[in-house]
Amino acid sequence: MSTVPSRQWVLRSRPSGRPSASDVELVDIVVGSPEPGFVRVENLVMSVEPYMRGRIGGEVNYAEPYPLDEPMLAPVIGRVTDSADESVPAGSLVKHEYGWREHSLVPAGECTVLAHDDLAPADHLGPMGIPGMTAWVGCERIARIEAGDVVFVSSAAGAVGSTVVQIAKLRGATVIGSAGSAEKVALVRELGADAAFDYHDGSVKDLLRVAMAKVGATGLDVYFDNVGGEHLEAAIRVINDHARIALCGMISIYNSATPQPGPNNLIKLVWRRARMEGFLLRDHLDAREEFEERMAEWLRIGAVRGVHTEFRGGVEGAWDAFLGMLDGTATGKAVVPLTADPADQDRKTRESGGIISSYKEATR
Amino acid sequence: MSTVPSRQWVLRSRPSGRPSASDVELVDIVVGSPEPGFVRVENLVMSVEPYMRGRIGGEVNYAEPYPLDEPMLAPVIGRVTDSADESVPAGSLVKHEYGWREHSLVPAGECTVLAHDDLAPADHLGPMGIPGMTAWVGCERIARIEAGDVVFVSSAAGAVGSTVVQIAKLRGATVIGSAGSAEKVALVRELGADAAFDYHDGSVKDLLRVAMAKVGATGLDVYFDNVGGEHLEAAIRVINDHARIALCGMISIYNSATPQPGPNNLIKLVWRRARMEGFLLRDHLDAREEFEERMAEWLRIGAVRGVHTEFRGGVEGAWDAFLGMLDGTATGKAVVPLTADPADQDRKTRESGGIISSYKEATR
Repeated sequence: MSTVPSRQWVLRSRPSGRPSASDVELVDIVVGSPEPGFVRVENLVMSVEPYMRGRIGGEVNYAEPYPLDEPMLAPVIGRVTDSADESVPAGSLVKHEYGWREHSLVPAGECTVLAHDDLAPADHLGPMGIPGMTAWVGCERIARIEAGDVVFVSSAAGAVGSTVVQIAKLRGATVIGSAGSAEKVALVRELGADAAFDYHDGSVKDLLRVAMAKVGATGLDVYFDNVGGEHLEAAIRVINDHARIALCGMISIYNSATPQPGPNNLIKLVWRRARMEGFLLRDHLDAREEFEERMAEWLRIGAVRGVHTEFRGGVEGAWDAFLGMLDGTATGKAVVPLTADPADQDRKTRESGGIISSYKEATR
Repeated sequence: MSTVPSRQWVLRSRPSGRPSASDVELVDIVVGSPEPGFVRVENLVMSVEPYMRGRIGGEVNYAEPYPLDEPMLAPVIGRVTDSADESVPAGSLVKHEYGWREHSLVPAGECTVLAHDDLAPADHLGPMGIPGMTAWVGCERIARIEAGDVVFVSSAAGAVGSTVVQIAKLRGATVIGSAGSAEKVALVRELGADAAFDYHDGSVKDLLRVAMAKVGATGLDVYFDNVGGEHLEAAIRVINDHARIALCGMISIYNSATPQPGPNNLIKLVWRRARMEGFLLRDHLDAREEFEERMAEWLRIGAVRGVHTEFRGGVEGAWDAFLGMLDGTATGKAVVPLTADPADQDRKTRESGGIISSYKEATR
């Protein structure tokens, strides 16, 4: 029986405040050959995501808590090294949920074989993954963006927002983005937004008005909301007739202990006959096939570019990467390369047109 | 040339606060025979509506201001006495906008000949008119009420709300209504609501919870909002997955000088994948034919009952009726019979199953 040494992150306690190093432990293990029906995967790149905070803390919102004293879960892309199930042959590029470890034994039925394995592995976590499909569903099914629409996107340098900007441009819309730093604003412009602003530079209401004037727009047809709060109120203020507001998440309230007042101008939804709609990806899994075909093609021709922040340090640095992501230091999709040579992945990402907006050294 | 004496209300000045008797004048005139293309109408019953306040004051929101020193406009039902246009023969029951007067000369093209002239005239202003069609569009096109839905309606004794309650019941929904007095609550129950409460009796949140428990509901599939404010926040709090919130108007904010904070729980729209949508009738005029056929039939078989408050006093009392309606004294549709013998209309209303919830003596 062939074995490989591996390391994996085990949850030891549930933090109530900010998670810390004492809540987890990096454990050395030996991974054996897969039993029948399983495959062994060498993991290449793993995702760290905000919802994991809830699963670590044991809050039940979107997903089950991680069990204590077991390795944690995370979406991860890897290459099958040994297969004991003919449906997932050795050599396949796969996506699975058994991240937070270098090598995983995965039930074949829980592996998704990635048809588009010419793309950079990190792209399968970003534009081809949950954030990208969230952007797609929000644009195509909820906001129903069309040519000529004026579209405003908050958190436009984020994993979802950066994809929304690009899809909206591909649909022929005029796009305004907001983000939280000058660097992020520059990135949003680089992705094709017609105007972008740093929301720290004034009131969102004023900044949005200036941005609209810059692109010759008198109102918004679509607002893709990732933050709620002041952004949402500012957007409602200037919606056009029959505007659509896609509610994707409300970062502004997640860290708030007490409920924040909502927008004071909802009556505008009546006057403008506007629609505001929340959505979660789980209701739209039937869109996956169409989405993947389209997005893979866009990535290949460079029409959409993946935006990633790579946290360095391999599996050892994964926990600090998670904390860094929680602190908001990432632009685009926060990913952690798990292979020995991340430069190898960088090359692939750049060759496929992706933007590695920043590297973070995450060492314990 | 045959003439008839008539009286009509002329706007003399634009009030900034509450309108008063000095803003208008009841003028005696003589109405001649109709010129070619016109008809002369003896008006039977007229509508007084909240939006008229804006047209009198000169605010531009939904409709044009009424010109000064001219008779005001209002939806009115009448019988054609003389016709100089073959498209609208004498004897036709018509609806037109030249109310606030006993006899009107109306361009034939601005008369709607009422096919269903077996119904009570007041029903053409209520369930068959703008409030009824607003209810219909909100239920059918915006909220898309289906059998088994749990539906909450605010202002449920109002002209729109009372029709929503009845349509929702006809669609097989469980219906909870809120209203502003014990009498109105009793009426809402009489219309078929499974539960109803007076929102003065506690917090809407608590009252709604009690009402839901009473009907065995754990959440709302539909909220038909006529008021905004506390009602809206309370409803969002308990929406089910894929709930629909139809925004029809926000009485709670109309009389407020400063913007009121919105609901503090809009994030629920994401978690519940809910849709909140404002609408105005003008976008749904293509629904008229289907709506009228259906509603006329429902009225004939007594499945829907018109709810009216009749302001007495004929044309002389119309201004006080308008002020009374503004003060919120009306239940259901506020109407002003203009004929000499209102009892004649009452009989017709009662024969067709309508509810005259109250009479108001409006005398100058």
